[in-house]
Amino acid sequence: MIYADNAATTRTSRTAIEAMLPYFDSVYGNASSLHSMGQQAQAALVSARQAMADGLHCSPREIIFTSGGSEADNQALLSAAALGERKGKKHIISTAFEHHAVLHTLDSLKKRGFEIELLDVHEDGLVTPRQVADAIRPDTALVSVMFANNEIGTIQPIAEIGRICRDRGVLFHTDAVQAAGHVPLDVEAMHIDLLSLSAHKFHGPKGVGLLYARKGIPLVNVIYGGAQERGKRAGTENLPAIVGMAAAFTEANENLQANAQKTARLRDRLIDGLLQIPHSALNGARSPRLPGNVNLCFEGIEGESLLLLLDDRGICASSGSACTSGSLDPSHVLLAIGRPHEVAHGSLRLTINEETTDADVDVMLRAIPEVVAYLRNMSPVWKELQSGRRQFVL
Amino acid sequence: MIYADNAATTRTSRTAIEAMLPYFDSVYGNASSLHSMGQQAQAALVSARQAMADGLHCSPREIIFTSGGSEADNQALLSAAALGERKGKKHIISTAFEHHAVLHTLDSLKKRGFEIELLDVHEDGLVTPRQVADAIRPDTALVSVMFANNEIGTIQPIAEIGRICRDRGVLFHTDAVQAAGHVPLDVEAMHIDLLSLSAHKFHGPKGVGLLYARKGIPLVNVIYGGAQERGKRAGTENLPAIVGMAAAFTEANENLQANAQKTARLRDRLIDGLLQIPHSALNGARSPRLPGNVNLCFEGIEGESLLLLLDDRGICASSGSACTSGSLDPSHVLLAIGRPHEVAHGSLRLTINEETTDADVDVMLRAIPEVVAYLRNMSPVWKELQSGRRQFVL
Repeated sequence: MIYADNAATTRTSRTAIEAMLPYFDSVYGNASSLHSMGQQAQAALVSARQAMADGLHCSPREIIFTSGGSEADNQALLSAAALGERKGKKHIISTAFEHHAVLHTLDSLKKRGFEIELLDVHEDGLVTPRQVADAIRPDTALVSVMFANNEIGTIQPIAEIGRICRDRGVLFHTDAVQAAGHVPLDVEAMHIDLLSLSAHKFHGPKGVGLLYARKGIPLVNVIYGGAQERGKRAGTENLPAIVGMAAAFTEANENLQANAQKTARLRDRLIDGLLQIPHSALNGARSPRLPGNVNLCFEGIEGESLLLLLDDRGICASSGSACTSGSLDPSHVLLAIGRPHEVAHGSLRLTINEETTDADVDVMLRAIPEVVAYLRNMSPVWKELQSGRRQFVL
Repeated sequence: MIYADNAATTRTSRTAIEAMLPYFDSVYGNASSLHSMGQQAQAALVSARQAMADGLHCSPREIIFTSGGSEADNQALLSAAALGERKGKKHIISTAFEHHAVLHTLDSLKKRGFEIELLDVHEDGLVTPRQVADAIRPDTALVSVMFANNEIGTIQPIAEIGRICRDRGVLFHTDAVQAAGHVPLDVEAMHIDLLSLSAHKFHGPKGVGLLYARKGIPLVNVIYGGAQERGKRAGTENLPAIVGMAAAFTEANENLQANAQKTARLRDRLIDGLLQIPHSALNGARSPRLPGNVNLCFEGIEGESLLLLLDDRGICASSGSACTSGSLDPSHVLLAIGRPHEVAHGSLRLTINEETTDADVDVMLRAIPEVVAYLRNMSPVWKELQSGRRQFVL
């Protein structure tokens, strides 16, 4: 089987599993307990927090462990909104192709009277620092721009946007769920005030992530209760998962350059090979792009049928975000970069990683053109395109 | 080492760990992905949800998986409040000795204009159905009474309270975090509308729990984002933890009667033995009480010193909730049952389980009286009590 859906989730690494295991049934104490078993747990928590801080270039006190990226996104946005509200600032800038954890939280803020301005995304899958600069107003409470898009993998000019926000005195949040462990992150150098990440996107376990919040930014709770995480995130600390995340993040950062080079070469082989298919196009710019992301549209077919036939051939791929797979709507990301509905429906996302091999790429480059041709053969839309009754877009 | 802090957290069982392991690095797909790896994950999710539903006597569709008990408590209360608000009902009844996940969420609702009425708890650690019945008003949106208290282990008359709430048309939530896996739960027979539980209290993993919400009760999101959990709880499903929880819950329920009998006998040995210490008292009624809970006050000493000296002797105990261990305030639970401040400070909670042995109890029954005597010898308060300058309370 070839697993090419690493943007949805990754295999938990042996390193992460080994790191976690002792905390299930050996040092299993509650990190908030005073006895020695609790204190051993507390020490592991401190050390995991330091490891995450080292990887992000921040202080351990600036990290709140959460149940994942979605919770961290929610807390970042609600906190910035609460702070803005107290200062009479109720304008929030974000982009049309954010993850739903951001977009739906913004919807909830809109209902509370916030004005949400979603920047258009260019055809290349990028927003520009200029767009952000032009949108900032005196009443802007927050700018939230994702680090790398989860569907098309384009990497935004985060450091430049951070610079602008810092200069203009506006809080800057980035959803770095797809970027963490794959591209270098430095909250200090990039002037990031709030950052969300999730462990299971870089070979850590599911169910854990964090919110980085720059010192001095007051946080509101998403979950009220006990005094854990300095009172900002209630619930018994999920120590095995936190330790696993720290181990995975450290390993990912140590191998970041080598993994990125190896993966990007295979990504480029895939892109070049698949673009040989007539009436296909890459979604988003080739660069800057996550090393493992390939996302194309094929005219005249349905992405879902493509996935199922590829699955029959042992290839696990996706048409976009797993978080919206229940929905029949076309990807909001592809629509945001200007793909028409009918083309957006024929999308394929392959997200590979450092475990992918040239042989895997060979298999995919053989299978995908065959399956696309097969589906087009059966497609009424394709017949219309061929006959000229419908115009090609790509 | 003797671990007597199972109310804070339990060892993850071998059964739960073995159940989880394949989902870290074998069937690691995203349960929302369409490919076969995702569908295998989805099948495991469905089966875990069924197992939890079987244990609670509800339908799988009435279960929302969360990151733990605190999140479930937050979602239950916020959902009932939102529903009440739409009907012009802004009165909420709860009790003075709930977990902070309930009390602090109620604080946040108070700020939003809700009237929160906390029922007094009797000296025996129980609230009565009559108290609930008397407090219900036409504008009551919710009654929230914990199933079993996390500090003193007293089990509330949940079925009777549920009956009253159902008859009066008021929603009823119970925080069953300490009860689940230890006493029988039946949401149908007990007329429970909303119930929270947490896996790590019954040998499941940390970082996972659930909210049961009776069919037809609309939920509000605590975490916005993807369409997981029917749109009511965003974030990639934490499949290993969910599967581990289901395995642990099933095992706990299979052995519930036997474990309870075994544990209660040792609990009673502990209570009887420790009550031999002069000027000591059991906190809360002996019955109905969780099979593993022992909680006493010793006059003239500080609970924290007691814990540290017991820890030196290899006994992991607690003075109350781990969630508030950073705080110097006396336990709100002990104050709620009428213990004066100075007595509440001298509390000891031992929470044992089916792995505890008679030999462990022997060790504790030797160590604790010695340590209490040692601390009293050094205590200025004890000297005042002995000399009659201060009156004994117990």
